[in-house]
Amino acid sequence: MIREKLEDYVTTVPDFPEAGVMFRDITTILSDADGLKLAVDTFADMLKDVDFDLVVGLESRGFMFGVPLAYNLHKPFIPVRKKGKLPRETVSQRYDLEYGHAEIEMHKDSVKPGQKVVIIDDLIATGGTCEATCKLVEKLGGEVVKICFLMELAGLDGKEKLAKYDVESAIVYPGK
Amino acid sequence: MIREKLEDYVTTVPDFPEAGVMFRDITTILSDADGLKLAVDTFADMLKDVDFDLVVGLESRGFMFGVPLAYNLHKPFIPVRKKGKLPRETVSQRYDLEYGHAEIEMHKDSVKPGQKVVIIDDLIATGGTCEATCKLVEKLGGEVVKICFLMELAGLDGKEKLAKYDVESAIVYPGK
Repeated sequence: MIREKLEDYVTTVPDFPEAGVMFRDITTILSDADGLKLAVDTFADMLKDVDFDLVVGLESRGFMFGVPLAYNLHKPFIPVRKKGKLPRETVSQRYDLEYGHAEIEMHKDSVKPGQKVVIIDDLIATGGTCEATCKLVEKLGGEVVKICFLMELAGLDGKEKLAKYDVESAIVYPGK
Repeated sequence: MIREKLEDYVTTVPDFPEAGVMFRDITTILSDADGLKLAVDTFADMLKDVDFDLVVGLESRGFMFGVPLAYNLHKPFIPVRKKGKLPRETVSQRYDLEYGHAEIEMHKDSVKPGQKVVIIDDLIATGGTCEATCKLVEKLGGEVVKICFLMELAGLDGKEKLAKYDVESAIVYPGK
């Protein structure tokens, strides 16, 4: 049975990874061929009027949607990874976590000045990782022309952190 | 310029992540739309005469090729992840590393008894992670009908560990 809406393929798992968190599990989108097609086609639809050169995806669920999208639209795919995983010369960006900080990287030659970049991830929560990704793209002279998420947790105000960008989410959950 | 061979898109990085290792960097396949298309189409070609139900991909470079392949062939995609990342009930499998061990997991409901499974990853080195993935599939009653790699490091004898399976690699490097 083909379900009509993308959110029908998402499984909500209470109390993961810790008590009080409603985890939105996207593996049940991927594990249904119709769900996977609907997700990738939904991203493609968000970009139908957007002129862009590159798809950037965030480790690791952003890879799951960004690469098939790039394949489907015949665009290059650029991975953003946690520090230390990319083998050639990188630019890096620190960002704050609830406790401490983290650092992500992108290969220095992956974006050329003036290139128009689309960023793909599964979820926007606080928006910290995505904001850091925008900074990486901009350090390399690229322009973030659109940011696409599968899901948005509206209660965490992540979209405010990305207020200067064109941001679209396929599903918006009101809570955290 | 479209390059004819997949290996022309791979960048070899000496001494990463440590001295003496020739790291085969697949980000330069992904960052070229023609390279990405060639890689995914190469996997699809390996499977053109294979009857199967599911694509299983290993974290995280296996996601990069497994998901577009699954999308393209309209099959479900099942992620294998490091311990603790999957939110629902899992089966897990330990495997040995050079120093110590690691553990990978798959959702318990992701493979049904009798289903025919294809495993996708970027690289076979010692074959330890892939062998553990086969065990996960078999614990759930699935049958591994083919294992496809982009690259094989022939000097590490990983294929011997997977001798009972049908294994194919697009590129074979003689050394480690």
